[in-house]
Amino acid sequence: MEKRILISDIKNHIGETITINGFVDLRRDHGKIVFIDLRDRSAKVQIVVSERNTDAYGVLSGVKPEWVLSVTGVIKKRGEKTINPNVFNGDLEMEATSGEIFQMAEELPFEKEQEITLETYLNYLPLTLRTDRARAIFRIQARITDAFGGFLRENGFTEIQVPKIIGEDAEGGANVFNLDYFGHIAHLAQSPQFYKQIMVGVFERVFCAGNVYRAEPHSTTRHLNEYTSLDFEMGFIKSHEDIMEMETRMMEYIMADLKKNCAEDFKTLNAVLPDVPEKIPAMKLREIQELIKKETGEDCCNAPDLEPKHERWLYDYALKNFGSEFIFVTHFPISKRPMYTYEDENDPGYAKGFDLLFRGIEITTGGQRIHDYNKLVESMEKKGLDPKKFSYYLQAFKYGMPPHGGLGLGLERLTAKLVGVENIREATLFPRDMHRIDTLLSEEKKEKKD
Amino acid sequence: MEKRILISDIKNHIGETITINGFVDLRRDHGKIVFIDLRDRSAKVQIVVSERNTDAYGVLSGVKPEWVLSVTGVIKKRGEKTINPNVFNGDLEMEATSGEIFQMAEELPFEKEQEITLETYLNYLPLTLRTDRARAIFRIQARITDAFGGFLRENGFTEIQVPKIIGEDAEGGANVFNLDYFGHIAHLAQSPQFYKQIMVGVFERVFCAGNVYRAEPHSTTRHLNEYTSLDFEMGFIKSHEDIMEMETRMMEYIMADLKKNCAEDFKTLNAVLPDVPEKIPAMKLREIQELIKKETGEDCCNAPDLEPKHERWLYDYALKNFGSEFIFVTHFPISKRPMYTYEDENDPGYAKGFDLLFRGIEITTGGQRIHDYNKLVESMEKKGLDPKKFSYYLQAFKYGMPPHGGLGLGLERLTAKLVGVENIREATLFPRDMHRIDTLLSEEKKEKKD
Repeated sequence: MEKRILISDIKNHIGETITINGFVDLRRDHGKIVFIDLRDRSAKVQIVVSERNTDAYGVLSGVKPEWVLSVTGVIKKRGEKTINPNVFNGDLEMEATSGEIFQMAEELPFEKEQEITLETYLNYLPLTLRTDRARAIFRIQARITDAFGGFLRENGFTEIQVPKIIGEDAEGGANVFNLDYFGHIAHLAQSPQFYKQIMVGVFERVFCAGNVYRAEPHSTTRHLNEYTSLDFEMGFIKSHEDIMEMETRMMEYIMADLKKNCAEDFKTLNAVLPDVPEKIPAMKLREIQELIKKETGEDCCNAPDLEPKHERWLYDYALKNFGSEFIFVTHFPISKRPMYTYEDENDPGYAKGFDLLFRGIEITTGGQRIHDYNKLVESMEKKGLDPKKFSYYLQAFKYGMPPHGGLGLGLERLTAKLVGVENIREATLFPRDMHRIDTLLSEEKKEKKD
Repeated sequence: MEKRILISDIKNHIGETITINGFVDLRRDHGKIVFIDLRDRSAKVQIVVSERNTDAYGVLSGVKPEWVLSVTGVIKKRGEKTINPNVFNGDLEMEATSGEIFQMAEELPFEKEQEITLETYLNYLPLTLRTDRARAIFRIQARITDAFGGFLRENGFTEIQVPKIIGEDAEGGANVFNLDYFGHIAHLAQSPQFYKQIMVGVFERVFCAGNVYRAEPHSTTRHLNEYTSLDFEMGFIKSHEDIMEMETRMMEYIMADLKKNCAEDFKTLNAVLPDVPEKIPAMKLREIQELIKKETGEDCCNAPDLEPKHERWLYDYALKNFGSEFIFVTHFPISKRPMYTYEDENDPGYAKGFDLLFRGIEITTGGQRIHDYNKLVESMEKKGLDPKKFSYYLQAFKYGMPPHGGLGLGLERLTAKLVGVENIREATLFPRDMHRIDTLLSEEKKEKKD
C-alpha cells in the first residue's frame, strides 16, 4: 500500500536512498547544517540537512517542531565520535537530499519535552500526548488491554459487548449519572456486573473491557468519573480463590507480555516491571487491621475497608515480609458489600471476596457471587432492595446458574502504578473529572443552567 | 486449576471415568433409561443415566432443562445404529456413574430451542441467549472483534481508550443524549471521531472498539440507540482510497479468521461466509443514482444518500455484475457531510469519502479528513459552526497533522448480515431502543416524570 519506510527499519537500508515520513521532534540549527529529529510511529532518527544539498536545505532548513514532513535521503552510519549509544538509531543518520512539507505547525506554547504543570498538560493534551513519556505510557496501556484479552481467550473466555445505558433500577446506590432517555430516566452503568453474570449462563467464561461511570463528586489523584474496567466472570468455581488464582496467572501473562514488547517504553519512563509471585500473598482484612494496630498503634479495626495510607503501609509490609508488590486483601464484612456477594460459610459475616492491591493501591475488586435464586432474593431483601425491580437479572438465576465469580480491574490504576505516575489523570488519555471534560467546565456555563 | 474435563475433549478419554460439568440442554425420559444432553462452554454430549447405576439414577434421573450439574461416568463409543453423524460428539456418550446437582432451575416458560417471537426473545434474554443459535451468533461476534484488533495491531495500529462523555459543544447535531454532569449538560458521544483524529498526531495509526450513542427516536430493524463501533484512523495517506484498501484487507482477514474458527457456528446458523474480492468494486453515488434511474425508472438523483431499498437494489446489482457482496459507494455531496470531510480536488462539491455496503446494508462510513488547520476552521464556518467551541480539537491541527483518514464499522450490522438475521436486535446481546432497556419502558414510569 505504501512505499514509505518506517524509521524503526532504516538500519536495513544503510547506504540506500529512501523516503521516511514523520513529525519534527526537535530541530538544532548549526547554520550551514540543520539537524532534525524526525519521529514516526515506530521510532526517531536524526536527519542532517546540509547547505550543500540545495534541494533539501531549501525545503527543510526552516522547519519547526511538529511540522509534518516527508524526507528523502541516504542512510549512513554515524562517525565514531557522534554515536549516541543511549538512544535507538543512535548510530545512524539520514543525509537529506530532498523533502516535502505536508503540514506546518504553529509555534508551540512550550517546548514539548519540557516540565509543565498537570493543569497545562491537561489543557494541551492534543500536543502533550506527543511527548516520549506520554507515548510510552499509552503504548504500555494498549499492550495491557491486548494481553488481558489474549490471556482470557487462551483460557476459554468469550468477549462480550455490554451496554452502558442501564434502566432506572438496575443498580442501587447514589453516584450514578442520570440520562434523559426518551422521556425516561436512565443511568450510566457503574460496572458490567449484571450482564457478565447473566452471560456466565451462556458462555461460562466471559470478559469485557469498557467504560464505566462513577458520579462521585470528589477530586483525588486516584479517582476518575469515567474509566476503563477490565472485567471477567467465570462459572464452575469452587470459591473466590479460583478467581484469585486466575488473576495471578493473568498478571503473570500481562507482565511477561510487557517485558517482551515494551522494554524500551519502561526504559523511557525509568519504570520497573514487578515480579508476580507464584502465589500472591493473601490476608484477611481483620488480620491486616490488627497488624496495623499492633505495628503503628492506629486502630482501624472496625472500618469496612482500608484507608489509602493503610494500603500504602500494607505495600511496604508485603514487600518487606513477602517480597511481593501485590497483595490480596480478603473477607470484607458482608454488610458493606453488594447484594450479590457470597458469604463465607466458614467465616460468617464475611465475604468470599477480595481486593488486589498493587504498589499500595487497590486495582481489583472480585469474588464469588451468590448463584442460588432464593438466596439472592433473600440477600436483596436484607439489603432493603425490592427483588421485583431486579426481575430481569434474576431470570439468569431462576433458570440455572453455576457457582461463579469474577473481578473488575481498573486499567488506568494498573497503568499508573506500573509506569510510576502519581496522578491517575496521566494514565488516562482524556480524563473526565468533576471539573473537566477536555477543557475546564467554566462557572459561566454552570450559571446558564441554574 | 480445575480437574474438570471439557466436553470438547472427551474423545481423548474413551474408556476412562471422568467428570464433566454443564447445563442440561435436553432430557429424554425412556423410563429405565434417561438421556441427558449436557452442555458446557465447549460442546455438548449425550449422557446415559440407567436405572442399573443406582447412584447416578438417584441423583440425575429427575433433572430438568438448565439445571447445572457435575456428572462422573465412562466415555463410550456409541453403537453403529445410534451414531448421529450430524452433531459434534455424535459418536460418543457418557454412561453416568454418579452425579451432583449444583443448581436446580425453575420450569422454563417455553422450550429453549422453540420458535418464539422477537418480543418474547427480548423479554427472556438471560434464558434465550443460551440457545445454539444465539451462542453461535455471539461467538462469531467475539471473533470479529478479536480479528479486528489482531489485523490492526499487525499493521502498526495502537489501541486507544476513548471517553464517551463529551462536552457541550464537542459534536454538533440533534440526536445526542443529554447527561447531567455535576450541574453541567454533557453528552454521550456519537462516535470517537475527534479523539481518534487527535491521536493520529500521537501514534499515526489508532483503533478503538466501543459503545456509541444515537438518540434517534425511531424504531427500525437496522437502528439501535447504543451500539458498538469499530473505528480506526491512520495518518500519511494519499487519499480515501488508502482507507478503502485497508478496510478491504481487514475484511479479508476477519473472514479468514471466521472461516478458521467459526465453521461449526456458521453451520449451526445455516449461514455462508462471503468472499472478499481482491478489489471491492467502488462507484460514485451519482453513478449509482443514474443507474437506478435507468434500470428502475426511480429518480433519486438529488438525494444525499441511498434509501434502504436502493441499497438492496445495489446489492443485487453488484452481486450480478461484479460477483461481490461488498460494494463501496463514494463521493457523497460535501454539503451533507460533517465539517471535517475532505473535498475531492478533482470533483468539487463531493467528498473523498465512502460507505461500505455489505449484503444490502451500509456497515461502514469512512473517508479522508481535512488536516489543514485553516481549511478546517473555514469548513466549520461554512457549516455555521463556531470554531471557538472546537478549540480543544483544533489544537491537534494547529500543532501539525499529517494527511489522514479513517472509518467506523458497525459491529452489530456486520454480525447481523454475516449470520443472516433480519433484525439487528438479534445481533446485539442487550439491545437498547426507544422502547426498551432490558425490559419495556412502561408508560407508567414515563408518567412519573411528566
